[in-house]
Amino acid sequence: MKNCLVAQSGGPTVAINASLAGVIQGAIDSKQFDKIYGSLNGVQGLLNGRLMDLSQKFEDTPMFIELLKKSPSMYLGSCRYQLPDYSEDDAPYAYIFNKFEQYDIDAFFYIGGNDSMDTVDKLSTYAKAIDRDIKIIGIPKTIDNDLCITDHTPGYGSAAKYVASTLLEIGHDTSIYPINSVTIVEIMGRDAGWLTGASVLARNKYNFAPHLIYLPEVAFDEKQFIKDVRTAMDRYNNVVIAVSEGIKDAKGQYISATSAVEDTFGHSQLSGTGKCLEYIIKQNIQVKVRSVEINILQRCAAHMSSITDIGEAFRLGRHAVEVALQGKTAVMVTAIRKSNSPYSVDMGDTDVKNVAGLVKHVPREWINDVGNDVTQEFIDYVYPLILGEPVVKYQRGIPDYLDISHLFPNKIGE
Amino acid sequence: MKNCLVAQSGGPTVAINASLAGVIQGAIDSKQFDKIYGSLNGVQGLLNGRLMDLSQKFEDTPMFIELLKKSPSMYLGSCRYQLPDYSEDDAPYAYIFNKFEQYDIDAFFYIGGNDSMDTVDKLSTYAKAIDRDIKIIGIPKTIDNDLCITDHTPGYGSAAKYVASTLLEIGHDTSIYPINSVTIVEIMGRDAGWLTGASVLARNKYNFAPHLIYLPEVAFDEKQFIKDVRTAMDRYNNVVIAVSEGIKDAKGQYISATSAVEDTFGHSQLSGTGKCLEYIIKQNIQVKVRSVEINILQRCAAHMSSITDIGEAFRLGRHAVEVALQGKTAVMVTAIRKSNSPYSVDMGDTDVKNVAGLVKHVPREWINDVGNDVTQEFIDYVYPLILGEPVVKYQRGIPDYLDISHLFPNKIGE
Repeated sequence: MKNCLVAQSGGPTVAINASLAGVIQGAIDSKQFDKIYGSLNGVQGLLNGRLMDLSQKFEDTPMFIELLKKSPSMYLGSCRYQLPDYSEDDAPYAYIFNKFEQYDIDAFFYIGGNDSMDTVDKLSTYAKAIDRDIKIIGIPKTIDNDLCITDHTPGYGSAAKYVASTLLEIGHDTSIYPINSVTIVEIMGRDAGWLTGASVLARNKYNFAPHLIYLPEVAFDEKQFIKDVRTAMDRYNNVVIAVSEGIKDAKGQYISATSAVEDTFGHSQLSGTGKCLEYIIKQNIQVKVRSVEINILQRCAAHMSSITDIGEAFRLGRHAVEVALQGKTAVMVTAIRKSNSPYSVDMGDTDVKNVAGLVKHVPREWINDVGNDVTQEFIDYVYPLILGEPVVKYQRGIPDYLDISHLFPNKIGE
Repeated sequence: MKNCLVAQSGGPTVAINASLAGVIQGAIDSKQFDKIYGSLNGVQGLLNGRLMDLSQKFEDTPMFIELLKKSPSMYLGSCRYQLPDYSEDDAPYAYIFNKFEQYDIDAFFYIGGNDSMDTVDKLSTYAKAIDRDIKIIGIPKTIDNDLCITDHTPGYGSAAKYVASTLLEIGHDTSIYPINSVTIVEIMGRDAGWLTGASVLARNKYNFAPHLIYLPEVAFDEKQFIKDVRTAMDRYNNVVIAVSEGIKDAKGQYISATSAVEDTFGHSQLSGTGKCLEYIIKQNIQVKVRSVEINILQRCAAHMSSITDIGEAFRLGRHAVEVALQGKTAVMVTAIRKSNSPYSVDMGDTDVKNVAGLVKHVPREWINDVGNDVTQEFIDYVYPLILGEPVVKYQRGIPDYLDISHLFPNKIGE
């Protein structure tokens, strides 16, 4: 028998470890692999020989799979390493494939976003060029939900649930004073507005926040924005605005890049998008205004994940093993939505070239005409993805996650 | 029989509604009051006649008390109204006491922080001056935990749990890259470091974050700070720093006030404390650095509250009713710690003058000598307060909280 290898790349999500758990469980259940290796810090682990025996971990650690499914961030760590074009520099390829040989790797699973799919593409192209039979499979993940072909990406549903819940809680928080106020909430998403749009799910029979939603898919117009805020203030005391960090003006320039601020040392500092909108409002409207950046919490708050998301992330991991055992390579596994009500998805796969380096945007028709809200189509799309809550185990008052000390081999945090 | 009145003031916490629930349950169980009125937006509701019949709400809404205990922010709204000295202007006093008369109010419960206790003090002093027999009782709340006499304040334990859990999740998030990085996490607390200190509870057998903790109780020294960060970087790849928004230099000036930034309009903008430390590190150390402001989430994330905190907030509400029925006035109810292990508290009360306008700081001996961490005494103090998790009900994928549309009477959000 042969072995398989799995690695993670890109930014953290709360579901990426569930996909890793799916790969491990799938590989063990298949009985087709002797060992399951994890490469620490993406492909870098291969380059510097930092591999972890996950089959051993599975045997040694009770509840390993269950804990892994619920632990945030990346159990195997990440990397920012980008492979060169092999026609220009094949040294790292030769090194990596030498390692594949050395560890008898028959299948390599890479969990990540569109940059990681580029790596899957490059490695599988190289394998073909040197006629090496190894299955290289991509497994999608990103809170940004901007991968093509797949209906959605693991990590998105949980982040969407966190964003919607947080907006509801901010709705409660801002409602306490009977005076006008504006609260701007900046949400992650440089290129696509999927996550910011999910804030719409905070609305219920009494909570109308967020009252305005701005996505990068529509050019941001300052005059229209000021008009929108004034109109909202006529209707609501405490206006809450959800905005993507990546909104751009009609020329395609990031709004955050248009209002650099100078610190006391005279250095220009990019202020965030939320801060920019705060300045715009302060300049134009007499009202109490503040901005809130949800920041990295939206991608690491595993205590509030969507069980739909975690379950699908796990299924995609398992499915990747099946796909590899079918002999496929150079593909990314995908979720295919069969029905919204009852919600159901099938697992599929696609040529990784359909995904690598590409971005899926929110369709323009899922955003209202004036560009300050999303439509019912968007709601119908995202709603099923946030449903269901896992039982979070707490230990000493804080969530009980999996030990990640193997990520710090050279420092005291071992 | 007579009636009683309850109101909330100051900033939101996730436990202040549990104290309200305790007052309602206590008043109903005592059978000593005909009606329980809630004043909307603190004492302002009395001034503009916006009272809510909570006894009716209790009868009409199934699970009212249970939902109220778990809903964040302030069911009755808040206000920033400060009473004048009655010797200078007794008009609002005359108006308020006229309303007390009109609604046959025998006891007034005011849930809030040290400013609200000042209101309790002023109202009860006035009552005495005009020889009016009404019991005016303060119930503490604040995530800042800076009220005197009481061992701790409702709202603090839940915020502390949220901060500790978030720091653990940030610890996971920052661990994924095998390169040096510094993450600064700014936590609420203008005057006292109780909440920032609670971040220490994020540490466990594998997570050493936060590696440095800075509280307002110790003068912040930039040189020492740079030295601390360098030392931490020798030991850990990814250094996480927890800092109170209210840290000050040796002259008592807020650090955030020392580095105003100028926006593109040429206006000076106060940047946050976290941003200031970010600039300091960028100026002095070559390392990837970012700052995260937990912001209002730490006071409104009811989906992660401490059941110890919620339970005590409820008990203090009930106890306030008992104290009023004993004929006391001008007091604030208090939690008295009997034992740490097993943890237990008694309920007591104190003259509100011992609390009004005063601030309780973290004892200097609960902070290490060099001023960059807290001691075991601090841990022993805060640990029991974050224990226990309530069952959070979710509806359509987001937490199910109590409808607060009564707070928006004049706008469309009714």
